[in-house]
Amino acid sequence: MRLLSNRRVYLLMAFVAVYVFYSIAFGSTGGEAASGESSGHGGPVLDILLGLMVILLAAKLGGDMFERFGQPAVLGELVMGMIIGNMHLAGIDVFEPFKYDITLEVLAELGVILLLFEVGLESSVKEMMKVGVASFMVAIFGVIVPFFLGWGVAAWFLPNESMYVHVFIGATLTATSVGITARVLKDIGKIKSREAKIILGAAVIDDILGLVILAVVAGVIVAVNSGAGEGISSLAVLWIIGKAVLFIAGAIIIGAKILPQYFNLAFRLRGKGVLLSFSLLVCFLLSYVAGIIGLAPIVGAFAAGLILEEVHYTRFRERGEHGIEHLLEPITIFLVPVFFVRMGMMVDLKTFGEIQILGFAAVLTLAAIIGKQVCSLAIFDKTTNRIAIGLGMIPRGEVGLIFAGIGAKLMLEGHPVVSTSTYSAVVIMVIITTLVTPPALKMVMLREPKTAKA
Amino acid sequence: MRLLSNRRVYLLMAFVAVYVFYSIAFGSTGGEAASGESSGHGGPVLDILLGLMVILLAAKLGGDMFERFGQPAVLGELVMGMIIGNMHLAGIDVFEPFKYDITLEVLAELGVILLLFEVGLESSVKEMMKVGVASFMVAIFGVIVPFFLGWGVAAWFLPNESMYVHVFIGATLTATSVGITARVLKDIGKIKSREAKIILGAAVIDDILGLVILAVVAGVIVAVNSGAGEGISSLAVLWIIGKAVLFIAGAIIIGAKILPQYFNLAFRLRGKGVLLSFSLLVCFLLSYVAGIIGLAPIVGAFAAGLILEEVHYTRFRERGEHGIEHLLEPITIFLVPVFFVRMGMMVDLKTFGEIQILGFAAVLTLAAIIGKQVCSLAIFDKTTNRIAIGLGMIPRGEVGLIFAGIGAKLMLEGHPVVSTSTYSAVVIMVIITTLVTPPALKMVMLREPKTAKA
Repeated sequence: MRLLSNRRVYLLMAFVAVYVFYSIAFGSTGGEAASGESSGHGGPVLDILLGLMVILLAAKLGGDMFERFGQPAVLGELVMGMIIGNMHLAGIDVFEPFKYDITLEVLAELGVILLLFEVGLESSVKEMMKVGVASFMVAIFGVIVPFFLGWGVAAWFLPNESMYVHVFIGATLTATSVGITARVLKDIGKIKSREAKIILGAAVIDDILGLVILAVVAGVIVAVNSGAGEGISSLAVLWIIGKAVLFIAGAIIIGAKILPQYFNLAFRLRGKGVLLSFSLLVCFLLSYVAGIIGLAPIVGAFAAGLILEEVHYTRFRERGEHGIEHLLEPITIFLVPVFFVRMGMMVDLKTFGEIQILGFAAVLTLAAIIGKQVCSLAIFDKTTNRIAIGLGMIPRGEVGLIFAGIGAKLMLEGHPVVSTSTYSAVVIMVIITTLVTPPALKMVMLREPKTAKA
Repeated sequence: MRLLSNRRVYLLMAFVAVYVFYSIAFGSTGGEAASGESSGHGGPVLDILLGLMVILLAAKLGGDMFERFGQPAVLGELVMGMIIGNMHLAGIDVFEPFKYDITLEVLAELGVILLLFEVGLESSVKEMMKVGVASFMVAIFGVIVPFFLGWGVAAWFLPNESMYVHVFIGATLTATSVGITARVLKDIGKIKSREAKIILGAAVIDDILGLVILAVVAGVIVAVNSGAGEGISSLAVLWIIGKAVLFIAGAIIIGAKILPQYFNLAFRLRGKGVLLSFSLLVCFLLSYVAGIIGLAPIVGAFAAGLILEEVHYTRFRERGEHGIEHLLEPITIFLVPVFFVRMGMMVDLKTFGEIQILGFAAVLTLAAIIGKQVCSLAIFDKTTNRIAIGLGMIPRGEVGLIFAGIGAKLMLEGHPVVSTSTYSAVVIMVIITTLVTPPALKMVMLREPKTAKA
């Protein structure tokens, strides 16, 4: 290996780099002009490999940058996506195809489905029953008030849009992304406090209420869009609500009965990867059924995570296999950033220059923040730090983005429910609510000495 | 929960099943006729979810069935794919779209890229240098003889096809899938024997030689196809050989120099999943570069695995993180079956009824088996069980399938290099070589008492 001095290696690297660049630039394979994508090797997979490389690198660099400032990695992924997606404004068009690539879109969708499955796995039906009245009241207040505030703000700023659009924007304000709050509370050593328990409990109920609202609102819009055009009967709305409630209740009831037998059957199968494959099957099946009956697939994925408990597959664990959360992590590490970077790419930075959109974003953000402060009214216990609970419920994070992304794909009278400008406003709202929470929560939690330890 | 008697749960399940079936059958969301795929939720992701469910379930059931008979799971995945892909012969068309879905194709390609990355990770450049003269000679014999035998058989049975097609079929006979042999040797407690070491060592070199041959043959076909039509200069062939050798050598040299610094930089990044993401980046980058310069992406993926060693990322390991192999496993459990089930789907069972194709398959299989028996001639040591070495090299398994799949996508004069009938013949060859190895090897290894323990 003495032949390989550093200089020679660098020369070799330079040669490889030049050759690869030459091949890309002239689309040729060594002299002969290959006729583009489909003739040589790989075909569409090469475009996807390039897209995945850009996305993975951007996600990790953006995540690192934001984590250094005590911010969640997901914001870094979103911001890097915004930069990549708007490079065409600086004349760089090379990333544009990623926005319209159907395979990257499906990979992103799989990513968010698996993310919601993971979130569902972290909570269980039993826990949900246990969190008690305080959490339940906080969750209800924290969903209803922002919903109507958001609806009102949307009606005020977008008077020409249909009522369904206003209602959808209200829905994007409902769900709390509690991950950020949980990390701040953990960082300052308050994760076992009474406030933390109430917030985390409320967030679980919040997620479900938010998903039910999304299911109903989106279901109504799909029905209006494909139905007789104008209006929808109150009977149809009731049927959509019933469907959403039936789906989640049905999943919980059937899941509890069937899953133990299901995994006992799976346990008898030989070969590796049985536990992971059969867990993915549950997730995909419920996502698929949700989609088929007109709900969002993520509603099904979350329900799948909610009903799947470790007790269902204890025999796999006894055999020394890892739990589902552990097995799922590498797949989500790979696919979830595809979703968030792509969400960022869809933001049109030009809209940030329009004063009206910035105004809408500002008022929407205010509605999001104030709406959740009402949560503190649900707490009657004076030893609890009520302000901290209101603040802890502020961040919208990934859930708001997921809702906005669904709205951008839902069509109503030929236009997307969430337009490019509305999408930008929602992204701004998500970024600000997420950024303000950690410092505010730290200040309030560390200042007030009356916090009662649970 | 007393309300929920078993009978009521079954009634509920029946209701859900009927409703889901109704929704699929009439494509509606609760009364209103939705206008198909793009109007409601999910869109293309629903088709993919359905495809993934069918594939995962088929893979696990097929794998289980074959493992029960001491056969490798991959054959079960292949056979289940063949059944699903030919259901239309029985009038069931519901699985047909999976064959042509571009996203499933890309997921399958990602699966095989990650599989080759995994295989590469299991071997290292150092090991390759160590295996010694015996393995090297076995590998060389085991590649050259089947290559020319396969070429000859193809020329005999397909006289109207171009020489490049014959050469390509020869190439599919070269690479040994040693996984099956390794498992048999492990099962009978001979994995530490001298024979095992020679076979496993030879298989690594085999893989590389096979990939180089594939790179050259496919490269020539791409060049012919996109070039002046007929013929290709010997200079161009030399350039393709040079490119393949340069690529692998370049990857090894540059990798050894750069990877330690690369992972040291990555180590400084915060956030989760950094090690996995940066390993995937290496794999995707080399696959992409291989594709761009006209080699198969899997050649790059294998090279990436070959150069990536645990010493490069010891700092992650010291921090308590899992190794790359461990992190990669859930992703390959998810994606690799997509490749093999899809490979099976592409088999047209009608061709199995054509006597000429069966004849071709039979002679091709004989060539594959006899070709590898020459390996035993490379062993001069009389204490070694030479017959066992010849037998151990027989299975073609996944590598033969991967080659056939690439050939089915390579176009030459407007036709795929590997036609539907040739594809069927190769699949038959793969199945038979894989099926005969375990019993034959067990018999020979356990009968002969002169086996020298290493």
